Amino acid sequence: MRKSIATVSVSGTLTDKLAAVAAAGFDGVEIFENDLLTCPLPPEEIRLRAADLGLTIDMYQPLRDVEAMPVLDVRRVERKFDLMRRLGADLLLVCSNVSPLAVDSDELAAEHLRLLASRAAEHGIRIAYEALAWGRHVNEYLRAWRIVHLADHPNLGTCLDSFHILSRGSDPIGIEAIPGEKIFFLQLSDAPLLAMDVLQWSRHHRCFPGQGNFDVAGLVRHALTAGYSGPLSLEVFNDHFRQADAGRIARDGMRSLIALEQGLQGLAHPAVPMGFAFAELGGTGSSQGGGSLVAALSALGFERAGAHPTKPVELWAQGGARLLLHDTAADRPEQADGPALIAIGLDSPDPAGAVKHAESLLSPVLPRERTPQEAPLDAVAAPDGTEIFFCDTAWLGDFAPATTAPHERADLTHIDHVALTQPPHYFDEAALFYRTVLGLRPQESLELPDPYGLLRSRAMSSGGDVRMVLNLAQVGAGDTPWQHIALAARDLTATARRLHAEHPGLLLPIPANYYDDLEARHDVDPALRELGILYDRDEDGEFLHLYTVTIGRVFFEIVQRVGGYQGYGAVNAPIRLAVQHAGSH
Amino acid sequence: MRKSIATVSVSGTLTDKLAAVAAAGFDGVEIFENDLLTCPLPPEEIRLRAADLGLTIDMYQPLRDVEAMPVLDVRRVERKFDLMRRLGADLLLVCSNVSPLAVDSDELAAEHLRLLASRAAEHGIRIAYEALAWGRHVNEYLRAWRIVHLADHPNLGTCLDSFHILSRGSDPIGIEAIPGEKIFFLQLSDAPLLAMDVLQWSRHHRCFPGQGNFDVAGLVRHALTAGYSGPLSLEVFNDHFRQADAGRIARDGMRSLIALEQGLQGLAHPAVPMGFAFAELGGTGSSQGGGSLVAALSALGFERAGAHPTKPVELWAQGGARLLLHDTAADRPEQADGPALIAIGLDSPDPAGAVKHAESLLSPVLPRERTPQEAPLDAVAAPDGTEIFFCDTAWLGDFAPATTAPHERADLTHIDHVALTQPPHYFDEAALFYRTVLGLRPQESLELPDPYGLLRSRAMSSGGDVRMVLNLAQVGAGDTPWQHIALAARDLTATARRLHAEHPGLLLPIPANYYDDLEARHDVDPALRELGILYDRDEDGEFLHLYTVTIGRVFFEIVQRVGGYQGYGAVNAPIRLAVQHAGSH
Repeated sequence: MRKSIATVSVSGTLTDKLAAVAAAGFDGVEIFENDLLTCPLPPEEIRLRAADLGLTIDMYQPLRDVEAMPVLDVRRVERKFDLMRRLGADLLLVCSNVSPLAVDSDELAAEHLRLLASRAAEHGIRIAYEALAWGRHVNEYLRAWRIVHLADHPNLGTCLDSFHILSRGSDPIGIEAIPGEKIFFLQLSDAPLLAMDVLQWSRHHRCFPGQGNFDVAGLVRHALTAGYSGPLSLEVFNDHFRQADAGRIARDGMRSLIALEQGLQGLAHPAVPMGFAFAELGGTGSSQGGGSLVAALSALGFERAGAHPTKPVELWAQGGARLLLHDTAADRPEQADGPALIAIGLDSPDPAGAVKHAESLLSPVLPRERTPQEAPLDAVAAPDGTEIFFCDTAWLGDFAPATTAPHERADLTHIDHVALTQPPHYFDEAALFYRTVLGLRPQESLELPDPYGLLRSRAMSSGGDVRMVLNLAQVGAGDTPWQHIALAARDLTATARRLHAEHPGLLLPIPANYYDDLEARHDVDPALRELGILYDRDEDGEFLHLYTVTIGRVFFEIVQRVGGYQGYGAVNAPIRLAVQHAGSH
Repeated sequence: MRKSIATVSVSGTLTDKLAAVAAAGFDGVEIFENDLLTCPLPPEEIRLRAADLGLTIDMYQPLRDVEAMPVLDVRRVERKFDLMRRLGADLLLVCSNVSPLAVDSDELAAEHLRLLASRAAEHGIRIAYEALAWGRHVNEYLRAWRIVHLADHPNLGTCLDSFHILSRGSDPIGIEAIPGEKIFFLQLSDAPLLAMDVLQWSRHHRCFPGQGNFDVAGLVRHALTAGYSGPLSLEVFNDHFRQADAGRIARDGMRSLIALEQGLQGLAHPAVPMGFAFAELGGTGSSQGGGSLVAALSALGFERAGAHPTKPVELWAQGGARLLLHDTAADRPEQADGPALIAIGLDSPDPAGAVKHAESLLSPVLPRERTPQEAPLDAVAAPDGTEIFFCDTAWLGDFAPATTAPHERADLTHIDHVALTQPPHYFDEAALFYRTVLGLRPQESLELPDPYGLLRSRAMSSGGDVRMVLNLAQVGAGDTPWQHIALAARDLTATARRLHAEHPGLLLPIPANYYDDLEARHDVDPALRELGILYDRDEDGEFLHLYTVTIGRVFFEIVQRVGGYQGYGAVNAPIRLAVQHAGSH
């Protein structure tokens, strides 16, 4: 299907927007009036600019508060027809009236729209009438359609907008009652479920399909069943997108439409990962503070299990938990701050299929310099720059056997989850990336108090052993781009006891006040207090966890899941953040 | 009255919070449970720390979901009593239950609270029961009071919270029906009127009294009438305050309570300014790019009207519009970016009274080095650092007569308004400062689209000739800390015609597309298009305005108000912002 986007969805001047949208591969644009008014180019030149970029101008929008007024202002509309002729646009969006002067009469609205449509016809223009969710009288899409039907003019149809329909909780199945050729346009956006005034919700919190909670694909399916054959067009008002890079947001919008189409075709994700193959830490050279990391890993029970033959990379392992330590001093001097999480390896049932799928979703596949004897290992870049590798087991063969064999104790059995700090304004992009490119399922978005702000946090899970936590720190006191790797313990209490005895200072101290409160709420093992273990429970089970101090940009969490607990101990995050801040100030 | 504040209202660790609150002059604190749980100090030491700072611990809060449960968890509450004993707190806040398990029975709630109050009495503790606005069954303050009355225990009273009462639209007059001695505590916060879920509204958008739209003072008056004699205590949850400096926010909270008290005493503002005496531009030295400014001012019709005898300051004037040009190269080398607005002089009916009033509201009075023959001129610092001078006419005598007399043409008659860019997180502080310290009245807060984000804008007006516009740029593409001075023109069309003819390039070009739209909406003089004049109208009159290009950090607007128009042409701000961004990129 053709893909279009409203210029309001991305930042910048109109010419910047057109360039960004074309570069992302869109076929057309809706020109948002405000973008045209602020543009120094005359409409004729905007038309040429779009054509040069290979973009059609699919709609000009919006015309407001025109129908069902006590007096129809035909002159104003004629001026817009004139503008559209210069712009080369032949479809005009008319939004349902919000004026307090509007008359509550479908007949009057239809009469006005019929008159405007007949005038439009003289200019070769068509009008798409849309019900705004907050329209004064017309705020349901089926009422807008009834008025269009009543007006009965070939140059008048309806425009459907997923936000206006789904935000009100209207059932989109009614779309199938509209003849496809009378659906002149289909605008798509998603949104998180927020209990707020629908106008504010619409103006600030829309996002691309797949980033929110609406079933946008289901709505599109109804429109296709009705016979709609026009473009899928994104129209998003979002405070973050407004401040973000236009090219990046446009590309993300295109990714959302591609994923939506794949969903409509019933394509299952070809290669949902089965587990963590490894996590790779950069900045681990001795000049980069890697010594502290090696000491901490040794304390945690990791052993050096191999080294890469041609690269300054070591494999450290314990049970099924594998970490790559990459001395990046030579090629990434920016990692002078010490160890940082730079890559994640995922066990994939079909690495080649996973990469192909990622490419279909516009993910940048990273070039790999490789010597002939190395295992092929392809990676894509996640929105925060972390490299995601799709692995089978061949990669392990690259690492020469270590001088010491991994010991048998294996306190820690595998990587439970990885938490990544996301760049501002791109949180929704990250959620869409992990959902569509990796096939993970988003969980609820949380806001956790930090001593200097809030931490927005959203977990993504494969439903199996791959769990990622995306964090966005909205804090005032300096930047805290902490990342962490959570390791699963066989017996957390025993591990904690050993670490306290043998490695004082490695674990984050937890305030006694926390335990006074915990013990008031739950009957818990006194060892939790003694060992500084945090605790959570839900209906499915229990969660025990603790943290190491931060080394460079990274710290480790050790967790133990008891029963069917599926969370991440978010209730304890404020405790952890406060202690971390106190330590870094 | 005693003044208190909940620790949740400011950022940082508990010990940081206590220090900031004490420094701001508060008498006591409410300890918010989460702040205690994350604190490494034991309660005994927190108690000592507060005492050392001269702070009483007025309340420990909150205990949630305890009353009217199928089973009363006395053990949990006893643990809190134990904690409070260690902390030296004798008042516990119990919030109305939000659990789905809560029983809808006032009798059961009263029975539980009576039992808890009798246990509390054994520890010398009292309980204040509060209706949360989103309580499961108890969400009205009079219902909470009915339960307290029913329980009838001397150690049980009610806590009133202005947010929980006013956010639901409850009439606070009912407070007078509660015996003053049963109002154990009074929590105060304000909020902007937002149509959103009350829980989200409460957790993110509360502000200090006088910063929002609630009549907090009216509510306090009812409590005082009822006989309440406890502290006025601030309890604010605000995303900006969380990220801001604790000391600054605490001081602002204290300012809000002082202003509230002054209002209760019926004190009118002693010295609302009558007009702009001057605006002062720093960074005007020849090495600072002052040449461009002088050229622009000359073009606008300003003439050099005097010079300060001892400081590198010149007076430039035209009609009643006066600008001071300050060569700050020697003492403020940071103004190397060129001209910037650094001070505003206000015609005050009582400069000494105005300064005294500002001091009473904790505004920093600035030291003035002065030679004996100079006129006294006192200034306070506004939240963004701008110096505000309170003037009578004596200051003009400091400026030696200029070599050229001001000419008679005087296209521009006076300063209409001044627009200042506010620092992030302190927008509410600025509104409170201008309202209380200067006696200006806030107008509606607007959000205006910028090509790279949003501009939050709020005008403050004396009702007469002093108008300030506070802007907060929430934009992604670089920082745009533009300030501007709006000058009133006698005949804007004539002025614009002259400037276009004599000074091409001085005025900001306005896109022709703007006029196509304007002319579709209104019958306007074709000269607007020809001269690049922006236009707005409302029920009271018309507004014509245009802008100069930016010089350093500042630009000039020229305005003409026709009829009773009181706005600022906000509808045209997106046009201006887009043109300015296009010019600066």
